[in-house]
Amino acid sequence: MAKAIVITRALKPEHVAQLQAIAPDYDFFTQWEHPVPQERLGDVEVILGGDGELTNAILDTPGNQLGFVQAHSAGVDYLDLPRLAKAKVLVANTSGIHTQPLTEYVIGAILQRTRAFAEAAANQRQHRWVHEVDYAGVAGRKMVIAGAGRIGTQIAKMATTLGIDVTGVSRSGRHLPYFDRLVKDEAAGPAFAAADFVVDLLPLTPQTHHFFDAKMLASLKPGVMFLNVGRGGTVDTAALIAAIKAGQIGHAVLDVFETEPLPADSPLWTLPNTVITPHIAGQVPHFKTVVTAIYAENLTAYLQKHQLVSHQLDLARGY
Amino acid sequence: MAKAIVITRALKPEHVAQLQAIAPDYDFFTQWEHPVPQERLGDVEVILGGDGELTNAILDTPGNQLGFVQAHSAGVDYLDLPRLAKAKVLVANTSGIHTQPLTEYVIGAILQRTRAFAEAAANQRQHRWVHEVDYAGVAGRKMVIAGAGRIGTQIAKMATTLGIDVTGVSRSGRHLPYFDRLVKDEAAGPAFAAADFVVDLLPLTPQTHHFFDAKMLASLKPGVMFLNVGRGGTVDTAALIAAIKAGQIGHAVLDVFETEPLPADSPLWTLPNTVITPHIAGQVPHFKTVVTAIYAENLTAYLQKHQLVSHQLDLARGY
Repeated sequence: MAKAIVITRALKPEHVAQLQAIAPDYDFFTQWEHPVPQERLGDVEVILGGDGELTNAILDTPGNQLGFVQAHSAGVDYLDLPRLAKAKVLVANTSGIHTQPLTEYVIGAILQRTRAFAEAAANQRQHRWVHEVDYAGVAGRKMVIAGAGRIGTQIAKMATTLGIDVTGVSRSGRHLPYFDRLVKDEAAGPAFAAADFVVDLLPLTPQTHHFFDAKMLASLKPGVMFLNVGRGGTVDTAALIAAIKAGQIGHAVLDVFETEPLPADSPLWTLPNTVITPHIAGQVPHFKTVVTAIYAENLTAYLQKHQLVSHQLDLARGY
Repeated sequence: MAKAIVITRALKPEHVAQLQAIAPDYDFFTQWEHPVPQERLGDVEVILGGDGELTNAILDTPGNQLGFVQAHSAGVDYLDLPRLAKAKVLVANTSGIHTQPLTEYVIGAILQRTRAFAEAAANQRQHRWVHEVDYAGVAGRKMVIAGAGRIGTQIAKMATTLGIDVTGVSRSGRHLPYFDRLVKDEAAGPAFAAADFVVDLLPLTPQTHHFFDAKMLASLKPGVMFLNVGRGGTVDTAALIAAIKAGQIGHAVLDVFETEPLPADSPLWTLPNTVITPHIAGQVPHFKTVVTAIYAENLTAYLQKHQLVSHQLDLARGY
């Protein structure tokens, strides 16, 4: 029986054909049309796209062939990374492709607020010419980016161009371009306390779960603008709701949630000064073409040399 | 009788005191409290702040002393510049102070649209988690800035950082930093026809009146996003309304109008895909402090050496 490659997320026929041409000796299964049957799980050597359940089912299969998982996303918290590490499976994400959309989202959300476009829209609906609105500027104000990395660097580039002072918070505190400074997690208290804008870009790991808990939120500057475009699980939702209601968080922009889709009866939908978007901050225009190019490049290298050329995860770190 | 200085726009008492200390031998009139009486018009040597009517009334006074008009604004179309030139009056504006707010407004308005924040708000009101919205990216798209100068340069810096291709249009076509290219007015047709975003930053002069007329608007790319943060009079309002209704302009962001305040019965308020703001794009936080600093610097130089140190207008060009 031939070995198999499973594509978990819908691609266009031309994308599938492009990948098949790279691995002509493999059986391809496209989960949205022709899912891999139970009896072929043991033959799957490569998964293109992310599916934690399928990945576990394959690893559960005695004598399985799994060698490479190429996720379609930047975050891979749905994968059991320790188990994949133990099985010596290579894992890659698509980190980087979300950088530009996330940057546009974060800068757009901040300017939407500071330039009071929502207030202008309310006045427009009433045909009212109203100057008495706080059209604040951002120059000289302070931003902290929690989870400073590749995406944060691009946001910092835009923010500093606008005259915002940007502190990056990361595990290492290692220098990155465009930031005014970087600090380690454990030394970040003063930066968080002084920030006008807090951007949560944290990946979800056991260490970052509920990083923004009640105590952390209480330590922020009253009235702070808080943006979560990382992972919902990095924030304690109940504490967040309380902080918004109390005005401790003056404005919240939330693209990710502990439960997604956000249930229709969630209290988040109707909180004051809160913008809810459906996990689209990192949505990539022409996504299928972009991820297929990454799939193709890594699949080629994997088949030829059993190694990857880009986006490989360090499984010990989890991202 | 002592010579006089008139401040036309309200400042705080400490700002007035700061200016009085520079010119202790002059009588000061603050128009919002103690307007200059008719019989003292001939004694006014300096106007701080813009007031076309008052300026003309002084110039109408035989033997008047007017030597320096320091406007509070960047645009000075309310002044009769040829007449001021003939009377050898020095004129300055406050060009530059509006650069940062205008940049934040333009970039914010574009991202608000391309990241579909208004659609997200509508879905939020209905507690609906909807992915099927066009969250477009801006990288690789084309912008034309009509009236490329100091403000346009800062907008170009931000836009090019976002990966937008930016063409500046100016009378001279002279090189400016951050633009991908600059072209002269008369050669700008192809750039306008290709633009996804057109930013109108034109000052209002006899040459720019109705620069965006029906023919010009028809030459733009169908569905273009059009932003006017220059002067209302640079656009033919009737033609603009027709172009928006026809979908030729896909999205309009209008901060300035031929008639301001925009009358409550204007059809602009209810046009589709149109954002109306009340001439606040260039509104400067801490405006009074910022303009007082410019007033003080130029007043000092005028009194000492009969010259200005910044923001002086070339009256032959009109801006």
